[in-house]
Amino acid sequence: MLDINKAIESLNWDKEPRGLYEPIGYTLASGGKRLRPTLALTAAEVIMNGGLINGDVPEHVLPAALALEVFHNFTLLHDDVMDRAEVRRGRPTVHVKWDDNTAILSGDQMLIEAYKLLADVPADKLPKVLRWFNEMATAICEGQQYDVDFEHDAHVSIDDYMMMIEKKTSVLLAYAMKIGGYIAGGNESQLEALYQYGLHIGLAFQIQDDILDVYGDPKTFGKAIGGDIRCNKKTLLLLTALQTTDTESKAELLQWLIATGRDEEKVAAVTAIYTRLGVREQAESVMEQHTAAALAQLDKLPQNSATERLRELAEKLATRKS
Amino acid sequence: MLDINKAIESLNWDKEPRGLYEPIGYTLASGGKRLRPTLALTAAEVIMNGGLINGDVPEHVLPAALALEVFHNFTLLHDDVMDRAEVRRGRPTVHVKWDDNTAILSGDQMLIEAYKLLADVPADKLPKVLRWFNEMATAICEGQQYDVDFEHDAHVSIDDYMMMIEKKTSVLLAYAMKIGGYIAGGNESQLEALYQYGLHIGLAFQIQDDILDVYGDPKTFGKAIGGDIRCNKKTLLLLTALQTTDTESKAELLQWLIATGRDEEKVAAVTAIYTRLGVREQAESVMEQHTAAALAQLDKLPQNSATERLRELAEKLATRKS
Repeated sequence: MLDINKAIESLNWDKEPRGLYEPIGYTLASGGKRLRPTLALTAAEVIMNGGLINGDVPEHVLPAALALEVFHNFTLLHDDVMDRAEVRRGRPTVHVKWDDNTAILSGDQMLIEAYKLLADVPADKLPKVLRWFNEMATAICEGQQYDVDFEHDAHVSIDDYMMMIEKKTSVLLAYAMKIGGYIAGGNESQLEALYQYGLHIGLAFQIQDDILDVYGDPKTFGKAIGGDIRCNKKTLLLLTALQTTDTESKAELLQWLIATGRDEEKVAAVTAIYTRLGVREQAESVMEQHTAAALAQLDKLPQNSATERLRELAEKLATRKS
Repeated sequence: MLDINKAIESLNWDKEPRGLYEPIGYTLASGGKRLRPTLALTAAEVIMNGGLINGDVPEHVLPAALALEVFHNFTLLHDDVMDRAEVRRGRPTVHVKWDDNTAILSGDQMLIEAYKLLADVPADKLPKVLRWFNEMATAICEGQQYDVDFEHDAHVSIDDYMMMIEKKTSVLLAYAMKIGGYIAGGNESQLEALYQYGLHIGLAFQIQDDILDVYGDPKTFGKAIGGDIRCNKKTLLLLTALQTTDTESKAELLQWLIATGRDEEKVAAVTAIYTRLGVREQAESVMEQHTAAALAQLDKLPQNSATERLRELAEKLATRKS
C-alpha cells in the first residue's frame, strides 16, 4: 500500500508568501489518523481485487486521496476559528499561533489546494469525482451550520441529530470510499456498497465519540470527560435521555441543563441519570447497528486482504477507547 | 448576448439550512458590475467571430462565467471579514448583518458553489479550466497575503506593488478572458492575447483606482477622497513619490506618514506633495501604457462587434471617474 504519510510530507509548502503557506504546512504536519485518504486507497485496493502484487494501489488514486485529507484539514482549520478552539492535536491552533485573518485566508487557500490536487485525477474520471467532491464539501458545510443551529434550538429530534452527524462526519468517509473505488474502476453496485460502508462507520464513529465523552477512561480518552455535558451539547445520549417517560428523571435532567457554575457536580449527576435511564446501552445498540450495517456492505464486495482490513477497521472503531 | 444578471438571479439559494445559504443570496443580489462573467462571455463571442446570429454565446460558456462571479463575490465576503469592512455596495456586510462565523462558513460554501458551477463545464474542457481556475484562485489568495504583508514592510518597491495588484486584481480578469475564449474554441495564440488583454486592463483599472482615491471628484467617486493617504496605503502614487530625488519633499512626505490625528490636513498636504512631484502624471502614464497594451492585444484577435466592445471597455476604464 502507498505510504500516505510520505505522500502528505512530500507536498511542498515552502513557498512565498510565507504567511499564506506556512500555516498550511503546519496544519498538515500535525498528524492525525489520515483516515480519509487511507479509506480511499483501501477502497481502490478492494476493487482491484488483489490483482496487484503486494496490493499496491496505482499512483492515479493518490491525488484524490490527498485532496480528501487536505480538505478535511481545511475544515478543522476554519472550525477551530469558529469554535475559538485553542489546541488541536496537542499544538496551538493556527488562529492562536498566528491570528484569525491568517487562519481564514490560509484556510481558503487550503480548500483551493484540495481542488488543485483533484485536478490531477485522470481526465475521464474527473467530471464525476469533481461533482462528488463538491457534494461532499457541501454536506460538511451544511452539517456544520446545522450543528450551530441546533445549539439554540429546543426541538432537535434524534432524526435531526443523525442527519447532522451524517453530513458533518459520515459523508466525507462515504465519498472517500466511493471516489477511491470509482477511480480504481468499480461498478455502480460496488460503489454504492463502498459508500454505505463509509456512511455507517462514520455514524458509528460519531456515536462512540458521544459515548466516550461521558463513559470514557480519562487516561486513554485524551480529553476531559464530560465536556459535552458541561456545554449541554445535544448528543445522542442527551436526546435519548430527554425522550424518557420517567418524568422525575426528565425534570432533574432539565434542571441540570439550566444550572450554571457547578460543572463537576453536573457531570456526575447527568451521568448518573444517563446510567439510570439505560441511555448508554441504547446508544451502544445504535452504534452496533451501524457497525453491523457497515460490515454487511463488505459482503457485497470482492473479498481480499483490503476488504479484511476494512472489516477490522469497522470492528476497531466500535470498540475503541480513545 | 446572454443576460448575465438574469442568470445570476436564477441561481437558487432558497435552501436549508437558511443560515448557510441566505448570506450567499444576499451577497450575490447586491449587484456590482458583473465585469468578470461579462468578460468571459465577451471573450467567447470574440472567438466565435460573429458567426452566431445576434452574437449569442452558447449556453455552455455560462457555467464558467457564473463560477467566476460567485468566486469573486466569495473573495469580497471573506475580505470584508478580514478588513472589518462594514459596508459593501451600500449595504451592511455579511459579518455585520449576521456574524463572523456566518461570514466564514457561508464564504467557504460560496467557494465550493463556484466549483459546483465549474463542474458543468463541458467534460473535454474541464481539466484545463479547473487547473486555470485553481491558478487564478491561488494568485488571488497570494495577492491578498502580499497586500497584508506590505502594510508592515518598509521596503516595498514599485515592482512588488505591481506584482501584488496583478495577483490580487488582474489575474482574475485575465483568466476570465482565457477561460471564456477556451470554452468557445480559441487557439493558443488567441487565448494568450485574451489573457494579456485581461491582465492589462486589470492593472490599468487598479492604477486608476489609486489615482481617483486622491484626485477623484467626491461627487462621482462614491467614497471619501484620500482614504489611501489617511491609512498610508502603499499605492503606486505613494511608492512613486518616495522615489523622488527631491530630498525636501521626501522628508516632508515621511513626516506625514508618521503623523497621527491630523487627517484632513494630512490629505491636503500629501496631495500637494504628489502634485508638486508630478506623481499623478507618472501614474497616469503607467496606466495609459497598460491600456495601450490591452488594446494592442485586441488587434491579434478576430475583429467583430465583441472585439469592439472590449476596445470600448478598455478606453472607458482608463477615463472613468468612479
